[in-house]
Amino acid sequence: MTLPPFATAAEIAAAVKAGTVTARAVVEDVLDRIETVDRAVNAYSEVTAERALVQADAVDAACAAGRGGPLAGVPFAVKNLCDLTGLTTIAGAAITRDDPPAAADADLVTALEAAGAVCLGALHMGEFAYDFTGENAHYGACRNPHDPNRMTGGSSSGSGAATAAGIAPISVGSDTNGSLRVPASLCGVFSLKPTYGRLSRGGTYPFVDSLDHLGPLARTSEDLALAYEALAATASSRDHAWAHHAVEPALPLAGPPARVGVLRGWFEDNASSEALDRRDRALAAFEDTTDMTIEGAAEGRAAAYLVTNAESSEFHLPRLRSDAAAFDPDTRDRFLAGALLPAAWVARAQRVRRWWLDKVMEAFAATNVDVLLVPATPFTAPAIGQKTLTIAGREVPLRPNLGLLAQPFSCIGLPVVTVPVFEPGELPLGMQLVARPWREATALRAAGQLEAAGFTAHAPVAIAEALRRVA
Amino acid sequence: MTLPPFATAAEIAAAVKAGTVTARAVVEDVLDRIETVDRAVNAYSEVTAERALVQADAVDAACAAGRGGPLAGVPFAVKNLCDLTGLTTIAGAAITRDDPPAAADADLVTALEAAGAVCLGALHMGEFAYDFTGENAHYGACRNPHDPNRMTGGSSSGSGAATAAGIAPISVGSDTNGSLRVPASLCGVFSLKPTYGRLSRGGTYPFVDSLDHLGPLARTSEDLALAYEALAATASSRDHAWAHHAVEPALPLAGPPARVGVLRGWFEDNASSEALDRRDRALAAFEDTTDMTIEGAAEGRAAAYLVTNAESSEFHLPRLRSDAAAFDPDTRDRFLAGALLPAAWVARAQRVRRWWLDKVMEAFAATNVDVLLVPATPFTAPAIGQKTLTIAGREVPLRPNLGLLAQPFSCIGLPVVTVPVFEPGELPLGMQLVARPWREATALRAAGQLEAAGFTAHAPVAIAEALRRVA
Repeated sequence: MTLPPFATAAEIAAAVKAGTVTARAVVEDVLDRIETVDRAVNAYSEVTAERALVQADAVDAACAAGRGGPLAGVPFAVKNLCDLTGLTTIAGAAITRDDPPAAADADLVTALEAAGAVCLGALHMGEFAYDFTGENAHYGACRNPHDPNRMTGGSSSGSGAATAAGIAPISVGSDTNGSLRVPASLCGVFSLKPTYGRLSRGGTYPFVDSLDHLGPLARTSEDLALAYEALAATASSRDHAWAHHAVEPALPLAGPPARVGVLRGWFEDNASSEALDRRDRALAAFEDTTDMTIEGAAEGRAAAYLVTNAESSEFHLPRLRSDAAAFDPDTRDRFLAGALLPAAWVARAQRVRRWWLDKVMEAFAATNVDVLLVPATPFTAPAIGQKTLTIAGREVPLRPNLGLLAQPFSCIGLPVVTVPVFEPGELPLGMQLVARPWREATALRAAGQLEAAGFTAHAPVAIAEALRRVA
Repeated sequence: MTLPPFATAAEIAAAVKAGTVTARAVVEDVLDRIETVDRAVNAYSEVTAERALVQADAVDAACAAGRGGPLAGVPFAVKNLCDLTGLTTIAGAAITRDDPPAAADADLVTALEAAGAVCLGALHMGEFAYDFTGENAHYGACRNPHDPNRMTGGSSSGSGAATAAGIAPISVGSDTNGSLRVPASLCGVFSLKPTYGRLSRGGTYPFVDSLDHLGPLARTSEDLALAYEALAATASSRDHAWAHHAVEPALPLAGPPARVGVLRGWFEDNASSEALDRRDRALAAFEDTTDMTIEGAAEGRAAAYLVTNAESSEFHLPRLRSDAAAFDPDTRDRFLAGALLPAAWVARAQRVRRWWLDKVMEAFAATNVDVLLVPATPFTAPAIGQKTLTIAGREVPLRPNLGLLAQPFSCIGLPVVTVPVFEPGELPLGMQLVARPWREATALRAAGQLEAAGFTAHAPVAIAEALRRVA
């Protein structure tokens, strides 16, 4: 037998462990779907079919011996800043193409394979992750599965697109200022940006050490939790920021109804009416809600900009000196500006980050809510090539403002689950559920409640249709 | 009865709890000794006699009720960057004199008083802690109890001098690049620079957030451990870097013989023959020693310089803009230079710190030693006013090189106990015992072993003589 194209990770693992389908058949099916779908979507930068089939056979052997893992036979793919043994980690850039191939897998690839998942390859991303659009001067734009003329969002563009298009039930991306949450929002899938330090960054191409997070994307909150538990199961890490902090089990997702804080003020002033309409739809799914206003997000976001600019520029300085013309022009200009920042500005920015964290933690303490609710992007997917957008009557540059509502939370390292809120045929827009540090399980349970109210990752209509025709 | 001038904290607490002496009598005695001694030493910037006597009476009442703490009646004083309710926290500067008085005590003052200790006042320090000498353009030099024409070292100048002179059995100082260890070394007392994040910095005047540590000084390793246990007993903190990490009990200090790694290479090339002679004397106290060479200290130290310069300059920038002439000229020049540093240099420096920490942790893992042994200063106390010194045939500026051997360890946050190594009549010089993160107890036990071999905080001859005459 075969499973339907949009089978969940939980369904795949159950079927593979029960022996009703082999991991090899699952992997062959999804490799076929990549052939059909990805010419239009441009999500994969490298498909590692041979590696996947070898791993699938190993999973089938393990299942036959009664040792199938929680993700047995579940295909996944990773943003091309994660090392895959034998491949060059290009990190969305051209200048990296001749770098030596990776000698080992990224820690998170090892963790997912240890749970029985099967790696399909590497995914499209914005150059060096300095991007919110999914456009890429070297490799073309990644295209939104819900409308190929629209942006996926970035920088985890391929991760959002591949998971939405049913060609990677689970994917891994990174989030420095919103790079998991923006594509999850625009492509209509779930994502988890964990607490800073929770998941290992070992074996990944760095962007901004103080702000880089890695995390999973999936099409259901249960799949997201399954992926998270597998990723968090590592006992050591090559990442200096990794904290061996107790992991609260996320599954099963059942639990008391979430107490939800609705962020008003700045977070509403900077969202489109469409985003606020989606927010209100989501809000109806919760019984216990509290209006909240927290001052300081704009300052927190400004701090994130400065830290991002300074640390990333320093990292790329040698190559900027020797080969500036090989960078994406948009990325290059920001790196060059960052190389001229005074250190005092960044020292101040680091203090502002702590000040803003204090404000948010005080607000959590004063209200006792479990999660904060706020749209992940101020609008749905713009057209590819679009340069400006209008928020609350002001025309603003599009690229930086895609991350407007996401940046304030990565800046202070809080765990955030993004939940897609749309009806079939609508463009997606995600809601952020922001929890206290180390409370990923709380955010995942709240996501499960929102999903139970009908907010799921509906399959893109045209792609589902195309796959039906092929099958 | 009264106790002798150089009674230890343990002896004082035992006597006070047994009722053989009152806390009030102990405090009155030490207030008298401050009158006699401190005109020559200049260790105290403010004596809070009234507060001390009120607290002493409270301790006596508690002891009478059978509730004497582990430091019952033990006088202590704090570097004048620690808040004391009702006093202005001047942090060694003139520009701060008109700041409003502190509304609450520093967390560490509260912790020591909770253990029964009695606060005597605030101690001399270098301006804004940016100093290794103990000289101060506004308040004059603090003077070494072993020779008043020589430096105390800094920036915890008053802490080192007061404890050495028997006018504060326990003191609190801070260490950003060596500011506890340099005065402990030159004044001949014990100090503990704990792991970064271990002891609260709440209610203290900041210098460099990424590098600031607070810690105790004492005249025996047992007193140091008593003070440390009291300081670490807080369950919460106003310090964002404070880590609620399990505290291994330090007392009793008995334990298996310490395995000691002797740092050769750079750490020997940058020490005087006198410092290496003291190191060899100390070494004879240990049975299990291993020669070690770790490359990278110079780079780690350079990184500490840049981080120090950038963060401290940013903090002081508003006052530099409005009132630069009111700073100590030496401090001002460094702050102004720091304000012009490019952010990329500091981002690189932060990466170098992690690289150097990795090197040291690899060396610990490869040898399995408990502590590293290295002199705390490259030479004994220079004369006040001296500007250069000769190390290994090279004439170098004195001020920055006083911290040469200390900076590489504060830079990476490791716990370090400094142990005085000298005979009565010699100028002191301290040895650093550097342990793994959170292993303060290990460093304290090794210090106890060195002390048991005869390396103690001998009382300064002239001061002991003067106090005998008064008594």
